[in-house]
Amino acid sequence: MTPHLTPDPAKGAAVKAADRAHVFHSWSAQGLIDPLAVAGAEGSYFWDYEGNRYLDFTSGLVFTNIGYQHPKVVRAIQEQAATMTTFAPAFAVEARSEAARLIASRTPGDLDKIFFTNGGAEAIENAVRMARLHTGRHKVLAAYRSYHGGTNTAINLTGDPRRWASDNGTSGAVHFWAPFLYRSVFYASTEEEECARALQHLQDTIAFEGPASIAAIVLETVPGTAGIMTPPPGYLKGVREICDRHGIVFVLDEVMAGFGRTGKWFAAEHYDVVPDLMTFAKGVNSGYVPLGGVAISGEIAETFDQRAFPGGLTYSGHPLACAAAVATLTVMEEEQVVENAAHIGATVIEPGLRNLAERHPSIGDVRGTGMFWALELVKNRETREPLVPYNATGAAAAPMAAFGAACRKRGLWPFINMNRTHVVPPCNVTEAEAKEGLAALDEALTVADEHTA
Amino acid sequence: MTPHLTPDPAKGAAVKAADRAHVFHSWSAQGLIDPLAVAGAEGSYFWDYEGNRYLDFTSGLVFTNIGYQHPKVVRAIQEQAATMTTFAPAFAVEARSEAARLIASRTPGDLDKIFFTNGGAEAIENAVRMARLHTGRHKVLAAYRSYHGGTNTAINLTGDPRRWASDNGTSGAVHFWAPFLYRSVFYASTEEEECARALQHLQDTIAFEGPASIAAIVLETVPGTAGIMTPPPGYLKGVREICDRHGIVFVLDEVMAGFGRTGKWFAAEHYDVVPDLMTFAKGVNSGYVPLGGVAISGEIAETFDQRAFPGGLTYSGHPLACAAAVATLTVMEEEQVVENAAHIGATVIEPGLRNLAERHPSIGDVRGTGMFWALELVKNRETREPLVPYNATGAAAAPMAAFGAACRKRGLWPFINMNRTHVVPPCNVTEAEAKEGLAALDEALTVADEHTA
Ligand SMILES: Cc1ncc(COP(=O)(O)O)c(C=O)c1O
Ligand SMILES: Cc1ncc(COP(=O)(O)O)c(C=O)c1O
Repeated sequence: MTPHLTPDPAKGAAVKAADRAHVFHSWSAQGLIDPLAVAGAEGSYFWDYEGNRYLDFTSGLVFTNIGYQHPKVVRAIQEQAATMTTFAPAFAVEARSEAARLIASRTPGDLDKIFFTNGGAEAIENAVRMARLHTGRHKVLAAYRSYHGGTNTAINLTGDPRRWASDNGTSGAVHFWAPFLYRSVFYASTEEEECARALQHLQDTIAFEGPASIAAIVLETVPGTAGIMTPPPGYLKGVREICDRHGIVFVLDEVMAGFGRTGKWFAAEHYDVVPDLMTFAKGVNSGYVPLGGVAISGEIAETFDQRAFPGGLTYSGHPLACAAAVATLTVMEEEQVVENAAHIGATVIEPGLRNLAERHPSIGDVRGTGMFWALELVKNRETREPLVPYNATGAAAAPMAAFGAACRKRGLWPFINMNRTHVVPPCNVTEAEAKEGLAALDEALTVADEHTA
Repeated sequence: MTPHLTPDPAKGAAVKAADRAHVFHSWSAQGLIDPLAVAGAEGSYFWDYEGNRYLDFTSGLVFTNIGYQHPKVVRAIQEQAATMTTFAPAFAVEARSEAARLIASRTPGDLDKIFFTNGGAEAIENAVRMARLHTGRHKVLAAYRSYHGGTNTAINLTGDPRRWASDNGTSGAVHFWAPFLYRSVFYASTEEEECARALQHLQDTIAFEGPASIAAIVLETVPGTAGIMTPPPGYLKGVREICDRHGIVFVLDEVMAGFGRTGKWFAAEHYDVVPDLMTFAKGVNSGYVPLGGVAISGEIAETFDQRAFPGGLTYSGHPLACAAAVATLTVMEEEQVVENAAHIGATVIEPGLRNLAERHPSIGDVRGTGMFWALELVKNRETREPLVPYNATGAAAAPMAAFGAACRKRGLWPFINMNRTHVVPPCNVTEAEAKEGLAALDEALTVADEHTA
């Protein structure tokens, strides 16, 4: 079955025309985009209506952790649709109960109560609501170099420039700097130094903001879209201690890093840390049906035992989405998808990327873990000047656009953000697919190399 | 096929136990709820594991406009799952293009560009973002007696008490009073007077807030959860004129009222008014897969033609959700579901409710249209004192709880909010089903009558 080998350009044109006439796209100037019409997808690949097939090194927006069209999950969705497609949230429903039970069995510590949402932003909104009501405090600390979603609270916590247009300085959000040795703001030269100084900076910020005014610290366990900066050993444990000292709720956002992406079920496991609240979405059901949520500690759940939790949404615990989660988590266990992410990450992706770095002067930094890697492209390895400026658009971003086009020409669909390309294929990618993608990157990087000095 | 006649209490107990152990429910004190375990649903009915079947006069949370498990929509979901379950938002995808085209063909005026979200709250978040960036202004006016969703901007705009716990007075939200003759805050005695005074009140509020500081006015076309107050003729046209005069974006929230609920495709059609932005969710695909969105006027879409729209979400235009919308809208047309809502509403529900009002002293007011009705229950018809106080809980709410239990005992699942019961069955309810529900209401209302003075 090779449906991608039957091109149908006329149909592609019709799909594209209706899109341009009626679909308003996220994060885009509607008149400046030219969305590819996609005809189908399977496993790690998708294809267009012209007969071009692409190896997807983006997992969509880093959500198809089990790849496209996994037959067991497709079947589970079809079966749930046949029996109970939808039901209101105030009832006990088998798929909902079972999804919550399975998720809670994977989450670290006592994060055993699951509040379901439709996606990541709503998970952050509700985690912050819980933290504020649990503590009776309003301020929330979050990191520059982060992304937490598009709704008001989530975008105000976000550190990346997508916040700017929606930032009215009104959500009690305070930003601080998390550790990132490659572009240290702490003048550090080792991971230990970066870690110690970042913790000191956080303590200083808390002291001056007023510990008793701070409801929560929200961090991506491994910041994703902002650059896949794996934190130095000890950092998250240090944050945990600071939170404990001041009665601050520690929220880890695992919307992107969770469910196998880092080669463990949750990224927090790498750092042996348990937050009070953990947000998730994406990998929980590989994005097959919109689903997100918050895993809640016993202590915070207790706050809402006799007192109503004042938040909710129509599709909390949607049966179809929950059935997809049950099937996805089952497949991940049966097919050892998390182990595969760790294994292919360590044996193919990491050595492959380090090998590319030896040969391509445009690669300034290689970092990541599991199936979660970033290449930081630079003009100059010494100065570390980014290949394109922070938040560049148009002509200023041309070198990255040229690099992206070179990847696509070679059948690889790359994830590009500012001066970085992220290597984030499905967690069940095969060795052969990973090598195919690395070979395409190798060729495309010669285009980036041309922009180095 | 009567699956509801095969009880399985042991399974129900297991589903319930897992729910109580792991599912954190919306808007609830987790220790005080006792969610019914639901085994199945079809058309206008659902059933539990004990063999009890209920006629659903709630349409879930007013979203299953075509009832449960419509075979054509189930099949469309299964087929989409088999071909392209999920895909990232930056691409043109057939189901997404087709859903946008179909929705745009139904929306009034030039609301022809569709931004997809997962639900209603995210639609409001993005509509407000569009309005703020389009106008360069920050404040948003919204009505008391309204519900717009649980995320930060949406809950701050909300008028109902669910806002209180999340209201930090920080989202630029300003509340005003919309018309509601039965509990007029304007000392009006006719609909004309209520309308004129409500418009004057809005104008006065705008004058004192500063017209040039106001980005948008957000209104539910027919406020839903807050009480199904159909606006008097001329009110929404008056608001439209006020918006035009001051360059304010007019947002109509049709998350609950849209897609047939009022007996027209959109409630705005009753009032011959076209907003600049219209939010939708629920009925767009009967909640079979989470989906919402914003329908955008040409003028506002134009603002984001060369300038990026700074908002988005991972599952914008989710293919499975969009395929469910295409199938739902097709079924609604083929089976004349909107016409049915208007017809059964006018010929069975309205006369039936008015007849109940003649015989039950607890009914203070009957109002609504299409398949969207409210009975306002009162202690005393003269004073209009509500059967239970505003926002009552526990013992204070006992009379409504007793009424609810009486409905359920008679096989009717009622929608209850404060001192009201809403009659909001699926829009394709049959005459026989509507009559069955009215008969159960008739009996249950005797319980409410006992609390009248
Ligand atoms: C870490 C993180 N948090 C939250 C979100 C927001 O999720 P959603 O787009 O589903 O609202 C994202 C999306 O990319 C994310 O990566
Ligand atoms: C009018 C209206 N707007 C917005 C919402 C919020 O929608 P959601 O629960 O899908 O976020 C609702 C939900 O009931 C609603 O009735």
